[in-house]
This record gives sequence, C-alpha cells and structure tokens, in this order.
Amino acid sequence: MVYLTRVEHFNAAHRLYNKAWTDEHNNEVFGKCANPNWHGHNYELHVTIKGEPDPETGFIFNAKTLGDLIKDVVVEKVDHRNLNMDVDFMAGKFTSAENFAIGIWNELQPHIKKRGSTMHCVRLVETPKIYVEYFG
Amino acid sequence: MVYLTRVEHFNAAHRLYNKAWTDEHNNEVFGKCANPNWHGHNYELHVTIKGEPDPETGFIFNAKTLGDLIKDVVVEKVDHRNLNMDVDFMAGKFTSAENFAIGIWNELQPHIKKRGSTMHCVRLVETPKIYVEYFG
Amino acid sequence: MVYLTRVEHFNAAHRLYNKAWTDEHNNEVFGKCANPNWHGHNYELHVTIKGEPDPETGFIFNAKTLGDLIKDVVVEKVDHRNLNMDVDFMAGKFTSAENFAIGIWNELQPHIKKRGSTMHCVRLVETPKIYVEYFG
Amino acid sequence: MVYLTRVEHFNAAHRLYNKAWTDEHNNEVFGKCANPNWHGHNYELHVTIKGEPDPETGFIFNAKTLGDLIKDVVVEKVDHRNLNMDVDFMAGKFTSAENFAIGIWNELQPHIKKRGSTMHCVRLVETPKIYVEYFG
Amino acid sequence: MVYLTRVEHFNAAHRLYNKAWTDEHNNEVFGKCANPNWHGHNYELHVTIKGEPDPETGFIFNAKTLGDLIKDVVVEKVDHRNLNMDVDFMAGKFTSAENFAIGIWNELQPHIKKRGSTMHCVRLVETPKIYVEYFG
Amino acid sequence: MVYLTRVEHFNAAHRLYNKAWTDEHNNEVFGKCANPNWHGHNYELHVTIKGEPDPETGFIFNAKTLGDLIKDVVVEKVDHRNLNMDVDFMAGKFTSAENFAIGIWNELQPHIKKRGSTMHCVRLVETPKIYVEYFG
Repeated sequence: MVYLTRVEHFNAAHRLYNKAWTDEHNNEVFGKCANPNWHGHNYELHVTIKGEPDPETGFIFNAKTLGDLIKDVVVEKVDHRNLNMDVDFMAGKFTSAENFAIGIWNELQPHIKKRGSTMHCVRLVETPKIYVEYFG
Repeated sequence: MVYLTRVEHFNAAHRLYNKAWTDEHNNEVFGKCANPNWHGHNYELHVTIKGEPDPETGFIFNAKTLGDLIKDVVVEKVDHRNLNMDVDFMAGKFTSAENFAIGIWNELQPHIKKRGSTMHCVRLVETPKIYVEYFG
Repeated sequence: MVYLTRVEHFNAAHRLYNKAWTDEHNNEVFGKCANPNWHGHNYELHVTIKGEPDPETGFIFNAKTLGDLIKDVVVEKVDHRNLNMDVDFMAGKFTSAENFAIGIWNELQPHIKKRGSTMHCVRLVETPKIYVEYFG
Repeated sequence: MVYLTRVEHFNAAHRLYNKAWTDEHNNEVFGKCANPNWHGHNYELHVTIKGEPDPETGFIFNAKTLGDLIKDVVVEKVDHRNLNMDVDFMAGKFTSAENFAIGIWNELQPHIKKRGSTMHCVRLVETPKIYVEYFG
Repeated sequence: MVYLTRVEHFNAAHRLYNKAWTDEHNNEVFGKCANPNWHGHNYELHVTIKGEPDPETGFIFNAKTLGDLIKDVVVEKVDHRNLNMDVDFMAGKFTSAENFAIGIWNELQPHIKKRGSTMHCVRLVETPKIYVEYFG
Repeated sequence: MVYLTRVEHFNAAHRLYNKAWTDEHNNEVFGKCANPNWHGHNYELHVTIKGEPDPETGFIFNAKTLGDLIKDVVVEKVDHRNLNMDVDFMAGKFTSAENFAIGIWNELQPHIKKRGSTMHCVRLVETPKIYVEYFG
C-alpha cells in the first residue's frame, strides 16, 4: 500500500458566527473570526489516495489527473469565493476548517471511488499555524 | 549599514473592482478577484529597517519593539478585517497588493522615523505566488 | 473524527551528554551536541487534538484557545530557556527531541483532557532535518 | 513509542514511459513526463524510525547516524543520477514516485533492522505538489 | 515605484560539462553535475516588474497576466524538458543557473517592454541551497 | 552581472546582555534574550557573490566550492557552539544578528576576494520572524 498526496491552493473569504447567538456571545467564542464584514485565507489543500502501484504505470493514481479532479470538483467551487455565501456544499454550515475539510471530502470521495480508488485523507491548511485532517 | 527585517502575519478579506466600470469590464480585468461576495488571503508582512548597530546593544532596532509596533500600528487595523470596508487607511482605494503595501508603509514610516530610525522596505506576500515590495 | 493541529514556535539552548560517561564517550555518541557551552534551536511545535465538530461552532477545539494553552503551559516554560537547566519538566532527563516531545505531551495532555477533549499527537521539529512525533 | 524522522535532499533525472506502449499512448498517460530527453526533480526524502528512547541517550536512533546511513545507502546511489539508467535498485521498474519510495524502503530497511531498530515510513516529496508515503 | 513579483514552477533535466575539456577535467570542475546521463531540478522562478500603480486598477501589472505570460513564454519551453537538448534559447550554452536566468530574462523582457512595463529581476531557485538573480 | 546565493544551516546558543548594565536594565532592553543560562537558534545563512559568468563554465562562482568555503570558514567555527563563549570572531561583541552577520562577512570576504570574486551580501535568518542583511 502506497499513499499519494496532491497539493492544490485556493483562497476564499468566510466568517464564523452562530445565528442563534447574540453578537456578544459570537465575539466571546469566535473573536475576530466573527467580523461581520468577513476575513479570508490562502488555503492549502492536500488530498491523499491509497493503493497499490499499477504494474503498467507504477502509479497508484495519476497525479496529474488527481490535480485536475481537485481543481474541477473543489477549487472551481471555492477559489476566490465566500464560503458562507457562494459554496453550495457549505450552505447552512459553520465554515470552520473542520467542517470545510469534511465538505471537501464529501465532494471528492465519490469521484475517487468511481475510478476504483480509495481516498485516504483531506488535509486543509487554513493558516501557517492551523490545519485539520479528515479521514472519512 | 545593516538591514533588519521583522515578519508578521495577518489575514483579511478584500475585493478588486472599479466602481466606474461595468461588471463585465471588472470581470475582464480583475477576473475572480472581482467576486462581489469577497475573497481573502493570509498575508505575510516583512518590514525592513536600515541603520548602524547601536554600540550599547548591537541592534539597529529592537526586533521585539519592531514586532510590537507592526502589530499595534498595522496588524490591529487589518487582521481579520475587510480591506475595502474596515480599514481607514485603504478607504476609497483599490485594495491591490501594491496599494496595500504603500498604505502600510505610510502608516508605519512616521513611527519608525519618530524613533530616529530609517524604514527601508515593506514586502507584502499576498499568495505563495504573488508579492510586492515598496521602498517609499 | 477530525484532527486539528495548532503550530507554535519557541527557541532554547540545550546540551546532550551523559554524566555517567567520559567526555570522550559523550563525544563519540553525541558529537557536537555535547558541547559543554551549549547550542540551541528554533523549535516548531505541532499539537494535534482529535474529536467531532461541535454542532454549535463547527470546532473540535477552539484553535485560539489551543494556541493560548500551548503558550501558557509549554512556551512560557521553555522559550528562550536552557532545557537542561531551566525547565522543571525536563529536570534530570536527556534533552533529546524524543524526551522533550514526551515531556511536552505530559505537560499538555491533562489540560486537554480536563476540557473533555483528546490529544492525539505532539510533533516537535528540532531542525529543518530532524523531527519527532509522540502519540502518548 | 516515539517516531523520529530525518530529512535528506538529492536531485535526479528520470522519465516515465512504458516500452510496451506506443509513443502516443505514453503521451496520453504520462504527458510531459514521457519526454524522451528526460526531466528531473529536487527530491526531499523523509525517513521515519519508531521505537522507545534509549535510557542512556534519550534517542530512539542517533539522528546523525541515520542521516549518514541515508546518505551512504540511498543518496550516494541516486543523487545527480538518472533513475532509469544509473540506479541499480530501480532497474527495469517504472520510476514513479510510488515505485521509487518502495525501492528506497527496500534499500534502507535491512540496514535499520540490522541495528535492531524499526523503520516506519519513507516519505518522498517529488515536487511541491506531489509526495508519496510507504510504510513497508 | 512598486515591485511586483510573480512565482512559477517547472522542472527539467540538464548536465554541466564543457565539450572542450576531458571527462576528467569536467569531473574536477562540475563534479556530479557532469553525469552523462543527466540529473534534474524543480526550478522556482520569480519574475519582478517595477512601476507605479495604475490609477484605474491599483496594479503595476496584472499578476494573472504576468503568470500567463511566464507560462506561455518560458514554462511552456522548459517544463519537463532537457535544458541542453530541448530548449532553443539555451542551445550551445552551459546550462548553469546563471546562464539559464539570463536566458529567461532575454525571452521575457521584450514581452514586458512591449506592454509598456519594466522588468526588474529574474530570480531562479535551482535547489533549496542555490539561487541566482539577474537584473538585465 | 549575475548574483549567486548559497544557503547553509547551523545552530548555536547565545545570550544578549550588556555587562555595563544592571540585570534589570538588561531585562528591559533584551527581555528573554538576556536569560543567563542562554537560549539558541537554527540559523540559516545566505551568502551572495556577484560577477559575470565565466565563458568556460557558465558559473560566476562554483556553488559547490562556495558551500565548502562557507562550511570551512564559518560553519565549522559556529555550528553547535556558544556565540558568546566559543567563537573567536565574536569575542567581546554583542551577539545580535546584526553583529553576527557583520562578523560572518568579515570572515568570508577575504577568502572570496582572494579568489578574484566579489562578495555582495550576507543574509542571516535568526528565527522565522527575524533576519538581517549586510552588504559590506
């Protein structure tokens, strides 16, 4: 079993707040992340596939194809967007890095599975100091 | 003459568009950066001071003091903010990396000068692929 | 289950040597790391928590709180210190990256547990070429 | 159990193609990687050992020794070489990152085992956007 | 005056040798870089433009356009190629980082000038330990 | 004119304090950097040479030779050392990054000059947030 990871980049605006709470309570919990006029990040996305090398190519998955797939299925929907307003698969969800990684997994995994391969991990780097990992 | 650089980080939302133009023309020039619902970045800010080492400390400028100054004068105003809506020194300006670097220089330079030192450069890294430098 | 990692930085002096050995044998095993006048590193510390996103915030743990906790419980004790002389939780231990990572885990883990969460990993990067991981 | 990783660098030329296929089909599958005149990479190699710290040193494995071993056993054979033509342990194999990581594991693992230690992972970074991991 | 830098990546094979010299002398001067079967690198290319921000956009040059130009004029010719055999603008030249940076400048500069702008610097990072800069 | 930079790494302990001052005043100015038991850093050293490519090699200076020279003349003296106690060229000086960069320049420059070449810059990265540059 070998693990292959492809890295892609995008950037987006978002805001963390809970509509059921007062502004005061949102500020207590989310701090500056609750700014009503949004803030944003350069996200770095790592997608990992696991499998055995194909005896005809030495690949477990074509890294170029994987990059194109991530761009078509994920980056196209989120790059230079507002995660709270513009992204269908995040509609009605808190746009925390945790939920966003789960959302990205759910978008990509069926496309990997359809090709007979196994997705292993989504790693999402939100800032140089914060990243999350989801394994399905 | 020695050059000392201090690096700080922040993140913000912004949008590139020219009110005098049609949406169509904005999209031609600014592409996805014109998204009306904003996008954002993790900015990396390098501020460079030049001078001769003080014979009593070996410093041209105290790096801790420089970090505190950048945080007080710049980061406090821009971190987790919307550059178009929330930042006084960018009001009415295009929030390109170029203009933003000039704005940051103009905010910081008087504070450096007041302390008898010379600011040399603001380098602003907007994405892993784009950065700008301004020397006053 | 999602994994959230927070990264913090600090720097410290240390020395690797075994009092029970001759200087000669210390030099054979530890080489330049046995320098009696110390050497030092910029350490990069990654702390990973695992859990399920809270339905009220989308967080498995508040990343800001995690950063503050790491700073209060670990960085405050080790930053700009001598690991062999100044750090209570390393007293009488070899200050290898391995032992230091275990020591940091033991300091932090009770604070994470007390908050009802689960610590998953401490990754400690000692140099650009050496890092260790400890999972408890 | 602690995990210790040592990072080393080298660079090499290679080419991805399947002799049993037409040039056209090679281009379809491998794209620019099939260039008959080769291309190349700066590879970054992470080798991870797992074990318990030795009570006499605090080490699970001497990181300097590990670096020397990687250099002697792997880097010496592959640095500034052509992976398809010059490297005995890749002879007759596709030089994909996947196969190369497996090859490196097979070269190194007996030397780690002979020293009574346990190799855990080879991570091979081929480009800033592609890396693979192999756990034996 | 503001300086805008765009970063792009590519990889290539090459070899350093002087046909007028014996193999022995080539090895003395170029060492492993003279390997007849080639070696290669992941190159990181920084291209810097200088100018004043356009009052209608805040740009000194559209960073997206600059990226496209670098890709069309340089990356297309060198990515996944052999610098000694496949690249017209390096024909008959030593493919040192120094000469390669000059070659890239000469390819790009007319396109920047044609658009009324001023190219300031080409920085070419050959390995994590070696980079060159050329200012025309 | 082309600029060639070689990067090397080392780590060291040091302390910032002024013997002519009280401990209190040292703490006011140098803060945690004045810790009597030392602290330390992983230093990253960039040395830049400028010149015209040699028509017989394409090099302005052999990068391998430059690396060896930096290691012989600088790294050998400072790696895994105490800058205040062990390094002859820093004796009696404040071991600020500024002074250390000047000291490194003074050590290296005669060796570069002796070879008929011109040293342009020493860049010394002390932490991920602080670096200095000296141009002689």
